[in-house]
Amino acid sequence: MNYNQLRNSIFEKKNFLCVGLDPDYEKIPNSLKIIPLTQFEFCKKIIDAVAPYCIAFKPNTAFFEERGIEGWASLERTIEYIKKNYPNHFTIADAKRGDIGNTAEAYAKTFLKNFNFDSVTISPYMGRDSILPFLKYKGKWSIVLALTSNESADDLETKKLQNSSTNFEEVINFTLKLGTKENTMFVVGATRPNDLKYIRNIIPDHFLLIPGIGAQGGNLMDVVENAWNKDCGILVNASRSIIFASSNDDFAEAAGAEAKKIAIGMSNFFR
Amino acid sequence: MNYNQLRNSIFEKKNFLCVGLDPDYEKIPNSLKIIPLTQFEFCKKIIDAVAPYCIAFKPNTAFFEERGIEGWASLERTIEYIKKNYPNHFTIADAKRGDIGNTAEAYAKTFLKNFNFDSVTISPYMGRDSILPFLKYKGKWSIVLALTSNESADDLETKKLQNSSTNFEEVINFTLKLGTKENTMFVVGATRPNDLKYIRNIIPDHFLLIPGIGAQGGNLMDVVENAWNKDCGILVNASRSIIFASSNDDFAEAAGAEAKKIAIGMSNFFR
Repeated sequence: MNYNQLRNSIFEKKNFLCVGLDPDYEKIPNSLKIIPLTQFEFCKKIIDAVAPYCIAFKPNTAFFEERGIEGWASLERTIEYIKKNYPNHFTIADAKRGDIGNTAEAYAKTFLKNFNFDSVTISPYMGRDSILPFLKYKGKWSIVLALTSNESADDLETKKLQNSSTNFEEVINFTLKLGTKENTMFVVGATRPNDLKYIRNIIPDHFLLIPGIGAQGGNLMDVVENAWNKDCGILVNASRSIIFASSNDDFAEAAGAEAKKIAIGMSNFFR
Repeated sequence: MNYNQLRNSIFEKKNFLCVGLDPDYEKIPNSLKIIPLTQFEFCKKIIDAVAPYCIAFKPNTAFFEERGIEGWASLERTIEYIKKNYPNHFTIADAKRGDIGNTAEAYAKTFLKNFNFDSVTISPYMGRDSILPFLKYKGKWSIVLALTSNESADDLETKKLQNSSTNFEEVINFTLKLGTKENTMFVVGATRPNDLKYIRNIIPDHFLLIPGIGAQGGNLMDVVENAWNKDCGILVNASRSIIFASSNDDFAEAAGAEAKKIAIGMSNFFR
């Protein structure tokens, strides 16, 4: 999905919600655990329930990997299911891979070619070598961690360099030399509104993927005030607060209701 | 495997070689591709050939993931095979995962409990939250990226902070607050001998995992001069130069011969 398609999908739907699929096996209702590919079954029901109220899906690889081969099979089925049934939804592999050379190439191939995700999240610690192999895939996106929503982002991300920029700015700056707003986005947490505004000034045109709404406590109004641009320019992610809105057999309905609530809130920001 | 067991294994064998298992499918001899779980079959033959000449194995998750479910199954079989047949070899999941909270917990469980690796590599961009969940597993190790062997390590890792330490020092410093030499190691590339010496001075007692020998051009003598400590303190990794020493059906023999050559060089450093 390219920039204009994403932009148009957002404005047609008056929505910029990304639903994070973190199918923590322990939290999936027991009634689904008698079915093979439990995580896929769970995700499928969530996807169907929330699809009208979001424009993107973000499966988190960790929770699938934790279930071994069956989990990996569930991840394959989940992305296939989205691509087939909701081809206009943007897809993000939340993998936070961060390696170099032929290893990074293997990760890029896994997520952008084999699975055929639109995008993948990348950890930039090792520098531009960890991003370039992903940018070779035309029509695909690299979503680079800049400033995350956790407290220990202060251990490294917000530290000031001698050139007086912070590490997260440094990451943004070297990434800007590699890609454009058509193939790169940045992760910026919702829990730091001032920094969000600061980052929006540095990169007025790029999409930002913004986690931290919901379970992590970030506020939607703050996010919009600080990060909205003429093309919307933000994908706001919520995961647990939606998919585990209920721990009972009504989990899909509850997820749909929760996503709908957020979607209504979002629609108010469009004229 | 704990610190003393690792140390003793090194001194008994007069060896500190880690063999990186990067089973790039394209490079595996065609004769193996008619067998199911090709990557496992390849790794198994390499493992048997090199086991006498190394003290650790480091499967690289990227190359298994690239092959989907079958690759994931090969990774499972590979670690099982090492644990069963070479229980005194140290095992490293080279996964470079870097996430936080319940996601990091899922990754830790995957590699340290389910697969039962002795250790896993971690990307520290998000700070201490990305390391702590791994340290909860007693008897297991977190191997944190500090200074890597690639050129673009200069994009972030070697940048100087206003407190005049570099980012890699910052990573070492916050990690030292979380763990000890009994459960944490650091990745430091062989391609930067001066920095290796500098890091050894900061952390005299920790094991360092040192890639960059072989295909990446680092020199074994330089590494030993700059990083050896009283307990050896270094695991030197070589991957491609060993496992793809031959692209023909004699690949295992060739790998064994290459590992043996390095092992002989290493044995000279022990009295």
